[in-house]
Amino acid sequence: MKYFDKILIANRGEIAIRVMRACREIGIETVAIYSKPDKNALHVKYADEGFCVGDAHPSQSYLNMARICDIAAKSGAEAIHPGYGFLAENSEFADLCEKEGIIFIGPSAETIHAMGSKIGCKRMMREAGVPVLPGTEGGVTCVDDAKEIAAEIGYPVIVKASAGGGGIGMQIVEDEAGLEEAIDKGMRIAESAFGDATIFIEKYLQKPRHIEFQILADADGRTVHLYDRECSIQRRHQKLVEEAPCPIMTPQLRERMADSAVTVAKTAGYANAGTVEFLYANGEYYFMEMNTRLQVEHTITEFITGIDLVKQQIAIAAGEPLAFGQEDISIRGHAIECRINAEDPLNNFTADPGKIVRYRSPGGPGIRVDSGIHMGYTIPAHYDSMISKLCAWGSNRQEAIERMRRAIYEYVILGVRTTLPLHHAIMNNRHFVAGDTHTHFLQEEHIVKSLRRYLLEEETRMQTLAASLRQGKEVAAIAAAVNVYVRNARR
Amino acid sequence: MKYFDKILIANRGEIAIRVMRACREIGIETVAIYSKPDKNALHVKYADEGFCVGDAHPSQSYLNMARICDIAAKSGAEAIHPGYGFLAENSEFADLCEKEGIIFIGPSAETIHAMGSKIGCKRMMREAGVPVLPGTEGGVTCVDDAKEIAAEIGYPVIVKASAGGGGIGMQIVEDEAGLEEAIDKGMRIAESAFGDATIFIEKYLQKPRHIEFQILADADGRTVHLYDRECSIQRRHQKLVEEAPCPIMTPQLRERMADSAVTVAKTAGYANAGTVEFLYANGEYYFMEMNTRLQVEHTITEFITGIDLVKQQIAIAAGEPLAFGQEDISIRGHAIECRINAEDPLNNFTADPGKIVRYRSPGGPGIRVDSGIHMGYTIPAHYDSMISKLCAWGSNRQEAIERMRRAIYEYVILGVRTTLPLHHAIMNNRHFVAGDTHTHFLQEEHIVKSLRRYLLEEETRMQTLAASLRQGKEVAAIAAAVNVYVRNARR
Repeated sequence: MKYFDKILIANRGEIAIRVMRACREIGIETVAIYSKPDKNALHVKYADEGFCVGDAHPSQSYLNMARICDIAAKSGAEAIHPGYGFLAENSEFADLCEKEGIIFIGPSAETIHAMGSKIGCKRMMREAGVPVLPGTEGGVTCVDDAKEIAAEIGYPVIVKASAGGGGIGMQIVEDEAGLEEAIDKGMRIAESAFGDATIFIEKYLQKPRHIEFQILADADGRTVHLYDRECSIQRRHQKLVEEAPCPIMTPQLRERMADSAVTVAKTAGYANAGTVEFLYANGEYYFMEMNTRLQVEHTITEFITGIDLVKQQIAIAAGEPLAFGQEDISIRGHAIECRINAEDPLNNFTADPGKIVRYRSPGGPGIRVDSGIHMGYTIPAHYDSMISKLCAWGSNRQEAIERMRRAIYEYVILGVRTTLPLHHAIMNNRHFVAGDTHTHFLQEEHIVKSLRRYLLEEETRMQTLAASLRQGKEVAAIAAAVNVYVRNARR
Repeated sequence: MKYFDKILIANRGEIAIRVMRACREIGIETVAIYSKPDKNALHVKYADEGFCVGDAHPSQSYLNMARICDIAAKSGAEAIHPGYGFLAENSEFADLCEKEGIIFIGPSAETIHAMGSKIGCKRMMREAGVPVLPGTEGGVTCVDDAKEIAAEIGYPVIVKASAGGGGIGMQIVEDEAGLEEAIDKGMRIAESAFGDATIFIEKYLQKPRHIEFQILADADGRTVHLYDRECSIQRRHQKLVEEAPCPIMTPQLRERMADSAVTVAKTAGYANAGTVEFLYANGEYYFMEMNTRLQVEHTITEFITGIDLVKQQIAIAAGEPLAFGQEDISIRGHAIECRINAEDPLNNFTADPGKIVRYRSPGGPGIRVDSGIHMGYTIPAHYDSMISKLCAWGSNRQEAIERMRRAIYEYVILGVRTTLPLHHAIMNNRHFVAGDTHTHFLQEEHIVKSLRRYLLEEETRMQTLAASLRQGKEVAAIAAAVNVYVRNARR
């Protein structure tokens, strides 16, 4: 079943290729869009057709809604897949697609809008009986109200922008003394970043886990979950390592959380793939938000369930009923994803765009690579620094970790700094191996210290390698690159 | 559990790396051996230590038993994994290892020896109640005996070398008139190839399927099967495409065949991983032989069962009992393997060694690549032409085929001719898609014709690409390579 003849993918990099892979498998033609610096990007080569959508800045290209709809019309694409990021959770875009008679592969504009409001969504879910973090019911605009509420919840509390995302404007407040300043600052940031100064306050958990459930729902409201993912290891509030299932999950907890996740989706009138995110601490879980799109880490759910989520998204968008029920979905083994970013973990994760001078991806049993790069490719500075997703599957968590270590050892990316050495350090960290993680894992002093020591050693090795590459001839250099990297990346 | 501290891998190419991957995952150090032309091969870089074992010719290097055992002793390796080919089914080598106090990762020398004799093994299995092809009980050395036997079996019959393998010396005889010559020739070939002129005769099936069962057995005789594989698509009696499970398998047939396969292993007193091969035609199956080693196509069994066969081999060799029973082993989905050989499918599969000028392996969901090559690597002319194994998994056979097509489309190997375009043609052949294959599939006129037409078109495209590569600069060339290949490899 191909459902559509042609789909436009309104994205770039690995996720554009991921969607095109699903399309190619089921025989749907693909249309790529690209900004001027992305002219030679792999996603453009992969597609059947490619159209330049504008200048480098996302507002001129990958966020240019009108132009994207024009290209869809011109190319004859019947549907648009937004990937993640850019326009994936933009209700205005979903709305525009509908008006233009193009199918938006995702939930309805109304659902995106409703789930996009943190306060409104939280209220809706609390009323539906889903546990949410104690906090303000509505937005806070006055410091005195805030003080009263915070005292009731109990410190520490967290101040967040209502319209926000990606951790922008988030502040932890330890006591009443710090509250006033935090609220002023939070409103200023919210106003400038999202054009909406509304903020809200909720209980701050000290060392929570981020646990999320993958949801699939068809247009008739048939809703299933595809089990859990643990995504606690984050840098600057963005996930860096994810695994499925969650290592501390029990049958009882899973039943309760899955039930809540399905309730969230049904309450939202959700159709298509989505993710219900929870915080978990001390045996209790709290609904955080619902992401109304495909997640970066959908890969690990695909690994353990065997279900292709992008194909499911396409089928649902075409009006197909879900072809399976909850009882047909089971977990096999354990999967881990490491996000490979072109950035410097030793320098506060500063982006490090540039040319890939050597590239060889890992292989063998249980390894999946989703990458948007190749040897000779120059990573542009304008976009997200994630260049590849490395996933490992094992028959149990230990085997998944062992395979991930082995795959990191095999992965050769030279020319830019990447998070690969950091991932190797994490995979060898005893707290991670014990499954003992939380959302501030990468800020804990003893962990930062041990990772830093590892990375500094790696740095020295890489400089030696770079020097030898500058001197050597082509074949010798490749041999040396693989050799030195391979021999030294190990612990 | 690591079982051993250090293992020597007495092989090269992808299978040496496959074994090293398992070792690296569980923390076993690896020792590579290499012939002089393999000095810079990937398997040498991958290992913790590497030792030159001799000159290019296998008899001087990868078949040099005494030298290999010396290196094992010198390096402190406690065990040797032979991979497949070379010494993998050499009982003399297994025996030598035992004498030298080195553990041979495979069955005992006695079992290898017993299973290596086609006639003796067939007799043993017939007596154990396993269906075998009607044929000579013992070796044939006299033409008159042969005539009598052939008349009893009924023509056509096949003449085979008793000690043989790889199809060497096999001859199909349609009627009595051709028998005498076939026997003379068969004996001559058997004598010169294997040093043993003994031949045997059995019933020849017109369009049989090759179906095999993966076996695991521990030292205490606990024996399980890991389901079936269909390996009917062969060129020159060597497998080219394999899939698991067999597309025509039914629960009833599987029960009968699996039962026979386990009987074969138990009758042989088998310990370690092995494969029981059957021919199947018209609802009946016949035991062919047992391969006393890891198969090339073990990958697809790993895909559908989730069990790492190399780690199982290592554990069994260390004396560990099997950690699971038959009831713990189940199939998920369907997997296909395409063997990527550096050879020219348009020119009778002549080997085409040379330098890899562009290389990018496929990725995304359900794809596994086991390759021994990289960009800039020169394939030596001295060894087997298989350079990579491309495997695709899908939730069902159709999805596995669709993913394989997509992965072939993504796979960039430039510089040598490969079987990639042939695999693309096979994946699109309607008989293959219908699961309607047999061991002479690639000799059928209408199939050869359609494949040839496809390949000739591909040839033209590749020449255009080669010309553009010669003119372009480096980055432009890579872009063009990926671009042209990607745009044109599709149907």
